Amino acid sequence: MPIRLSQLFLRTLREDPADAEVNSHRLLVRAGYIRRAAPGVYTWLPLGLAVKAKIERVVREEMANAGAQEVFFPALLPREPFEATNRWTEYGDNLFRLQDRKKADYLLAPTHEEMFTLLVKDLYSSYKDLPVCLYQIQNKYRDEARPRAGLLRGREFVMKDAYSFDLTDEGLTASYRAQRDAYERIFTRLGVDYVIVKADAGAMGGSASEEFLSPSPIGEDTFVRSPGGYAANVEAVTTVAPEALPINGLPEAKVHPSPNTPTIETLVALANKDVPRTDGRLWNAGDTLKNVVLALTSPEGKRSLVVVGLPGDREVDAKRAEAAFSPNEVEPASEADFAANPELVKGYIGPVKNGQQVLGIKGSSKIRYLLDPRVVDGTAWITGANEDQKHVFDLVKGRDFDADGVVDIAEVRAGDPAPDGSGPLELARGIEIGHVFQLGRKYAEALGLQVLDENGKLVTVTMGSYGIGVTRLVAVLAEANNDEKGLIWPEAVSPADVYVVAAGKDDHVYAAAEQLVAQLESAGKTVIFDDRVKVSPGVKFGDAELIGVPNILIVGKGLEQGEVDLWNRRSGERRSVPLESAVAELVK
Amino acid sequence: MPIRLSQLFLRTLREDPADAEVNSHRLLVRAGYIRRAAPGVYTWLPLGLAVKAKIERVVREEMANAGAQEVFFPALLPREPFEATNRWTEYGDNLFRLQDRKKADYLLAPTHEEMFTLLVKDLYSSYKDLPVCLYQIQNKYRDEARPRAGLLRGREFVMKDAYSFDLTDEGLTASYRAQRDAYERIFTRLGVDYVIVKADAGAMGGSASEEFLSPSPIGEDTFVRSPGGYAANVEAVTTVAPEALPINGLPEAKVHPSPNTPTIETLVALANKDVPRTDGRLWNAGDTLKNVVLALTSPEGKRSLVVVGLPGDREVDAKRAEAAFSPNEVEPASEADFAANPELVKGYIGPVKNGQQVLGIKGSSKIRYLLDPRVVDGTAWITGANEDQKHVFDLVKGRDFDADGVVDIAEVRAGDPAPDGSGPLELARGIEIGHVFQLGRKYAEALGLQVLDENGKLVTVTMGSYGIGVTRLVAVLAEANNDEKGLIWPEAVSPADVYVVAAGKDDHVYAAAEQLVAQLESAGKTVIFDDRVKVSPGVKFGDAELIGVPNILIVGKGLEQGEVDLWNRRSGERRSVPLESAVAELVK
Repeated sequence: MPIRLSQLFLRTLREDPADAEVNSHRLLVRAGYIRRAAPGVYTWLPLGLAVKAKIERVVREEMANAGAQEVFFPALLPREPFEATNRWTEYGDNLFRLQDRKKADYLLAPTHEEMFTLLVKDLYSSYKDLPVCLYQIQNKYRDEARPRAGLLRGREFVMKDAYSFDLTDEGLTASYRAQRDAYERIFTRLGVDYVIVKADAGAMGGSASEEFLSPSPIGEDTFVRSPGGYAANVEAVTTVAPEALPINGLPEAKVHPSPNTPTIETLVALANKDVPRTDGRLWNAGDTLKNVVLALTSPEGKRSLVVVGLPGDREVDAKRAEAAFSPNEVEPASEADFAANPELVKGYIGPVKNGQQVLGIKGSSKIRYLLDPRVVDGTAWITGANEDQKHVFDLVKGRDFDADGVVDIAEVRAGDPAPDGSGPLELARGIEIGHVFQLGRKYAEALGLQVLDENGKLVTVTMGSYGIGVTRLVAVLAEANNDEKGLIWPEAVSPADVYVVAAGKDDHVYAAAEQLVAQLESAGKTVIFDDRVKVSPGVKFGDAELIGVPNILIVGKGLEQGEVDLWNRRSGERRSVPLESAVAELVK
Repeated sequence: MPIRLSQLFLRTLREDPADAEVNSHRLLVRAGYIRRAAPGVYTWLPLGLAVKAKIERVVREEMANAGAQEVFFPALLPREPFEATNRWTEYGDNLFRLQDRKKADYLLAPTHEEMFTLLVKDLYSSYKDLPVCLYQIQNKYRDEARPRAGLLRGREFVMKDAYSFDLTDEGLTASYRAQRDAYERIFTRLGVDYVIVKADAGAMGGSASEEFLSPSPIGEDTFVRSPGGYAANVEAVTTVAPEALPINGLPEAKVHPSPNTPTIETLVALANKDVPRTDGRLWNAGDTLKNVVLALTSPEGKRSLVVVGLPGDREVDAKRAEAAFSPNEVEPASEADFAANPELVKGYIGPVKNGQQVLGIKGSSKIRYLLDPRVVDGTAWITGANEDQKHVFDLVKGRDFDADGVVDIAEVRAGDPAPDGSGPLELARGIEIGHVFQLGRKYAEALGLQVLDENGKLVTVTMGSYGIGVTRLVAVLAEANNDEKGLIWPEAVSPADVYVVAAGKDDHVYAAAEQLVAQLESAGKTVIFDDRVKVSPGVKFGDAELIGVPNILIVGKGLEQGEVDLWNRRSGERRSVPLESAVAELVK
């Protein structure tokens, strides 16, 4: 049966919804695919459900091809398994928590590592049972601080999440590869542009990890790529540390007054005026060492400070900092933090060495001091003197100061070298559509998933987890496929194969259109049929463009000449063809 | 691709799970269809998912045939719409409530009347848009006090819920009929035995309401039916009030001591000894008027008492009382209630007339007094004298006492007359599998769903709601189709059409089985294939019986004679057929 617009539960909108920030959100609401029910929570209308179902079918087929088996977990889960892995706490405010009538703690699952681990533990006990890969397509919940962009970052959303279970690391690598290959097939079949980038594996406690990003100017993820094929999200880019330099012969450090230098620029200007370099070159921002105070909050709510020294021409990248300090939350130190730690002289913070005063630099802070990887032994810096309105010059790492460790959280910039030597990086934005992850044994250890190996010895299973944002894909596809008139779906996900418009008032237009619809359906095509009698052709064409089925068949005034129009929504090409060949053209 | 037992994520169990009370639960767990994740919350394993998917497919097809359109709502919903209909409060402890990070109130939806109403209000505005019927198949949440019997009463479960929207009462009747007819087709196709019974419509505020019950000894619902075709659940049975009797000439009421009569039986014995009837008959329990004190708790938590007078040979039926006093919760009055209301002389409570003392009967309670419909004017009773150790005899309704109203909460008994005169009732137990409901305008009024009629006048829409318990149906089907060996699925819901067992060790057994599996799949049959090489035929046959696919094909030792075995799981019949005709037999 065709979807008849005379019956379809649909109301297209001329106006953009007030809360829509991006094209996909705007158009999916206007074209009647989704409606907002609460912030970050959406209702699927019939057309939206059709697109979602097509994506799910492709995902299921490729999961089956990859040997993964479908199961279905509850979304409402007890606290205990998440307590065992500490994620009950680590998830912080992102987790929806609730209690049942007996005051037992529950959560709405943001992901299901724990439950899959426990299920395999429940059913399996021998190496002969492995490998196994399980998946589900299921509603997930995350209490996002800022749900945005419609389906792109929702609080209730559909994910395909898969989990592999292997005895050995080689097995995990193979399972990971099988899912990664399936993801490539899925995104290719769906017509989604994607880049595979190295991802930061730290937070999940695993080893290898890659993200599938769909390049998009509205993407929340920044990633880098090099001409030689390196690609990573910014959190995962590692900075190549330069070689250490010889310390012998470097000028001595000296403190110099530096009033009115609130910024790196003013400091550099003062330096070039008052303390010119002996080698004739000019000081620049990269010669300064900026010491940034960050406040870390652990999942348990414990707050601590850390000082990070990095070249003054780089800012701290918030996402890289979050990744590096995960599971802590990171924010700039507050006025209260500075007030509580008077040794941190705001604007003039300098390094310390072994917690001791360095030269004329005051302070012996107990606060952890970390350095950017570029700050290697033998590099000399202009930096704060830990004293108001004073800086120190020619302070040499390895001679005058040291750090408690290295932290790689400075921003990545276009032109930075790829860590694998494959050339300068370029930056782009993308939307995360998939994530493949070698979890390793973290969850199996926490939850006691062991099996007997060939020798009757208990061994801990190694796991992978693999996610695709199903509802997010609807938005990604809408975002990448639209124009000012509306959506333009790739054929693989279009809510129908053909959109038939009966344009006119005469009964024979509708009769001819009905016949064509029946023929198309006999040929296996799904059809949306605009059979509304009292709607003008102009409105019908507008709705057709808005709804975005790629192939449109117009039955209208050409009918008297025995012709109908084929309209390619993507190219805009519209041409008349004989009535009797229309179906053949659309089926071929 | 067949489901291969060598690969399938499955572990059949020999032992019953400790918490399983009923056959369906026991067998669905043992045969590897489901696993418990928390009380009333289940995980679906691959076989279970296959059965559930088959049910969902039938439901979708029949919803489409009935003209209903599929949508999909969030399960996580904001409080406000449920506040507008008062259900945020009325649901009491059955509702899972939670707060997001901004402390906004949310709930996990137990049903979606409010959201569908608001969605139609959002999209539609004219009589031309109606009627429309929408449905979803979706996870629902109810914090049941006693989750039990596996999938039969869970806290997270899948429902198909549909909602119709009409302009007129006649339209609602037609929409209701279309869904009711679809339900009959669905249950018939699925092979579910069902009875349609009149249901109590009170709680939902609507008018007509019917339940689809599947008769089962483990059912929680009691229903009645008459030889003439009347059927109702006990909550909906109305008692036929007898004709009033003449009051003139009845003996005067008199108070009589009645020590040591804690029960109706002891009271009747004392009456026949001390106060014999003047007409020579014996007193019996039906001549006594028992006054029961009930405590009602409103959704807002307000507690009040009510006294209900009913013939002493009947008990109060808890479910009928819950329905009659809904949305209040009902429980017997507590000792504290009696202590706080000393006019209620426990064991000797009598009626009052206009709140006044009746004859020698003390007390002028402000507590509401309601009577069973059988207590009509002119009936004379033995009842409490509102005085310790005293009863009153020949107290006549309409002469000596009256009530504030009638309430029909006495138990229904086999042999009671059907209210429509269609004969004596018999009682049976059933499991509710569907519910169709004419809601009327309650929700549309509460949420302001109005459309313009032909005359440009705003009219309030009338609604129906229609539910099927999808996951419960899996349990109902399992409960009705099993034997001591395991499950026996109806073909329409079996996880596969054919279950092929390769029974033996020889390679050619497996090769022949593989060929048969391929032929069956080419003929459009879905197959589970027990291809496990190291498992004995006995274990394989046991698993086949436990898993319960109705048609089993055994490839084993008969192969040397060119024969395989067809095994009908339901009848137990097992017969040899020539290898080359096996597929044809199974396909026909």
